[in-house]
Amino acid sequence: MQSTICALASGQGGAVALVRLSGPDALVITHTLTSKTQLFEPRRQTFCSIYDGKNILDKALVTYFKAPHSFTGEDVVEFALHGSPYIIGRTLELLCQSGAVPAKRGEFSQRAFLNGKMDLVEAQGLCDLIAAGNQSAHRLAMNALDGKLSGKLSEIKTKLTELLAQIEVRLDDVDEEMTPLSTDFITQEITAVLTAIRTLTDTFSVGRLIKDGLKVAIVGAPNSGKSSLLNALVGFDRAIVTDVCGTTRDTVEETLEINGQKIRLTDTAGIRAHALDVAEQEGMRRSKRAMENADVILFVLDSSRPVCAEEKQLWQDIQTQHKRTLIVLNKTDKPSSGKIDLENVTQYTQFTVSCKTGAGLNELKNTLTAPMNEVEKDSLLISNLRHYEELLRAQTELESALMQLTKNAGGEIYAEHLRGALTHLKDLMGEVTPDDILGVIFSKFCMGK
Amino acid sequence: MQSTICALASGQGGAVALVRLSGPDALVITHTLTSKTQLFEPRRQTFCSIYDGKNILDKALVTYFKAPHSFTGEDVVEFALHGSPYIIGRTLELLCQSGAVPAKRGEFSQRAFLNGKMDLVEAQGLCDLIAAGNQSAHRLAMNALDGKLSGKLSEIKTKLTELLAQIEVRLDDVDEEMTPLSTDFITQEITAVLTAIRTLTDTFSVGRLIKDGLKVAIVGAPNSGKSSLLNALVGFDRAIVTDVCGTTRDTVEETLEINGQKIRLTDTAGIRAHALDVAEQEGMRRSKRAMENADVILFVLDSSRPVCAEEKQLWQDIQTQHKRTLIVLNKTDKPSSGKIDLENVTQYTQFTVSCKTGAGLNELKNTLTAPMNEVEKDSLLISNLRHYEELLRAQTELESALMQLTKNAGGEIYAEHLRGALTHLKDLMGEVTPDDILGVIFSKFCMGK
Repeated sequence: MQSTICALASGQGGAVALVRLSGPDALVITHTLTSKTQLFEPRRQTFCSIYDGKNILDKALVTYFKAPHSFTGEDVVEFALHGSPYIIGRTLELLCQSGAVPAKRGEFSQRAFLNGKMDLVEAQGLCDLIAAGNQSAHRLAMNALDGKLSGKLSEIKTKLTELLAQIEVRLDDVDEEMTPLSTDFITQEITAVLTAIRTLTDTFSVGRLIKDGLKVAIVGAPNSGKSSLLNALVGFDRAIVTDVCGTTRDTVEETLEINGQKIRLTDTAGIRAHALDVAEQEGMRRSKRAMENADVILFVLDSSRPVCAEEKQLWQDIQTQHKRTLIVLNKTDKPSSGKIDLENVTQYTQFTVSCKTGAGLNELKNTLTAPMNEVEKDSLLISNLRHYEELLRAQTELESALMQLTKNAGGEIYAEHLRGALTHLKDLMGEVTPDDILGVIFSKFCMGK
Repeated sequence: MQSTICALASGQGGAVALVRLSGPDALVITHTLTSKTQLFEPRRQTFCSIYDGKNILDKALVTYFKAPHSFTGEDVVEFALHGSPYIIGRTLELLCQSGAVPAKRGEFSQRAFLNGKMDLVEAQGLCDLIAAGNQSAHRLAMNALDGKLSGKLSEIKTKLTELLAQIEVRLDDVDEEMTPLSTDFITQEITAVLTAIRTLTDTFSVGRLIKDGLKVAIVGAPNSGKSSLLNALVGFDRAIVTDVCGTTRDTVEETLEINGQKIRLTDTAGIRAHALDVAEQEGMRRSKRAMENADVILFVLDSSRPVCAEEKQLWQDIQTQHKRTLIVLNKTDKPSSGKIDLENVTQYTQFTVSCKTGAGLNELKNTLTAPMNEVEKDSLLISNLRHYEELLRAQTELESALMQLTKNAGGEIYAEHLRGALTHLKDLMGEVTPDDILGVIFSKFCMGK
């Protein structure tokens, strides 16, 4: 039998805390805690005492959501408690003493999925929605949560299923009583499905940036003004969200918002200063790693002095990265030293800025965020790596099917590829996903959801 | 006209966030955000889309509490949103664009008080309840919130009011038609009120400790084992709640729970290590300040070596503090050096402990928390400084009245003192408190309450 799970669903530290209980025993457990035996009217907030033995632990607003009309599709009870650490902790203890078990991360959503309240794509949208820190990320998640993305995927899946049915019925037609499908027709149908999937996979590069943020590595020689640029970008926007340690201990990222987009600046300036007393190549190694992890490289040059040997070496390294690179000519408030003596440099976008006066910074910021800001408001974007990978796999199968068609291979052969593509689409929406994989997916959700 | 206020009532960072709206325009503003025009049924959670222009910002459970049947006594609407930072921020922006204003700290409680939903003592109990981190602090706050403390105070106030009425009616009785009250009777009545108040004020010393935590300064010479004692106390309980900076920048406190009580250890050990490179007297000065701020001093001595000069100096300082002091003879796993060569030392409670083996630690912990743990479960305690001070003032007035009585002063004189005492009791419960003072009191409450 299904267990009854409980968790704090709201954040810690507020005046009010919301504890959620879901499962077949939700009502019985609630009766125990509230010493009530009458039925709770669904969706109506009832003022109740929560008992800890004979003592009143808290007076709370309790709401019952009757299955299947709840978030999880099970019986759910929500307790709006006073937000004290003691009351929250003790309430969860009492719930567990009365038969509930602590919910795992994402377990409420997992149950909602298993009870058919949403598909996997919608569930992922919900997870992303809660994490969304800006308007673009929010819109992206909302499109997944409210079924727009699922709708598009279902449409693709239906088209593929119908084509496959037409092919398979002819494979079973040993007496060849049916009119065969023309190769042109099949090619046209597969191409249509493939194009629809490619349209989605093409959005992943920008979808990922909107969801996870644009990783920007600021590189340059010491004293070229990297720190000033960092401070100017951060300072003008006054929106430092948090300082997070990078994947490696020795890199620090600053997350900020530019033009409504999440930007993750990797502070190689700080690294260099710190590395003064270690070998010079250590600094270089770290700059390189920062560039490898970045989506965009900002190469900062001091326009008031000639290019130095270290900058020439750095420029070689930058070019081997084959990444989007913007060249920032800093200190334009000082007299220019003339032409930039670096090969191929004219093939890259250059910005002249002065961190001192702020000149040129807006142009730089607009160019940085342009790929994310130019996305149409209502367009459907793929931002989840698992979704992207399943779509790519489906795409590969469809491409193989098309190739077999040009080779005039038998129907069994290309039908097998089409079946493969269909399985990946079903996996994506959670129709055939095994339990252990579901467990991994939902364990990345937040607590209490 | 009263404004309509809004704030996040739950904590940040959960799956669900609760935004609260209170005031005359609560419903109209909710209609704007939800694009609904129908009435919301009171106390029933309704699933609504929250609109940001034409776009859906979130799908939320919205509950309407009709005045006066709400926390504030006004029309209240609560929005259970998805807990994303973007959704929370944008919802509050939209509420304000539709006519609400951001609530000040404690403003919901202040309105509840002004609308007669609770008195000041109950409101303070609510504030303390939300902050309560352990069972004792919780019980203390609960007694205030559910009116037990207010009930006791009302009883005292009524008794005093009745006595004063009997006295005043005779002061107005210029024709002396009424039987005069005997001095004995008045003395007896005032003494009864005074005793009841003293019973409450006597609880403040322990009530304060339960609510704010017991401040313990661990002092001793370097290498006496202060850090080991601190680690042993913290480690065995595994309940470090938080590290907070002390009132002065250079002291660090560790908050932990021992026997269900909040203990705030001041780490003078860390101070000393840090002060190695500054003048020796700096270390002494800091130890002294830690002792001045403490409720209990733990003087740690290494029982395996004789008392040194520094410890003799420290012992002089400790005795001048006139505080509860426990002597901890550490390192009892090593051979003892014999008698402790410090004057008056036998007059203090001594503990022999070994931080290495854990021997003696339980006795130390039980003695530390004894004053708090020995309080009867249902006893009413004063834990709020303002309450204590108002009661002390009432007490002083009553003592003055008694003194005037012994001097056979006229009724006008002692009646004036009784009136003074009554005013302080009314102030305590918020019956005559001016608006600006109320503002200060509620501004110490948490946000969203």
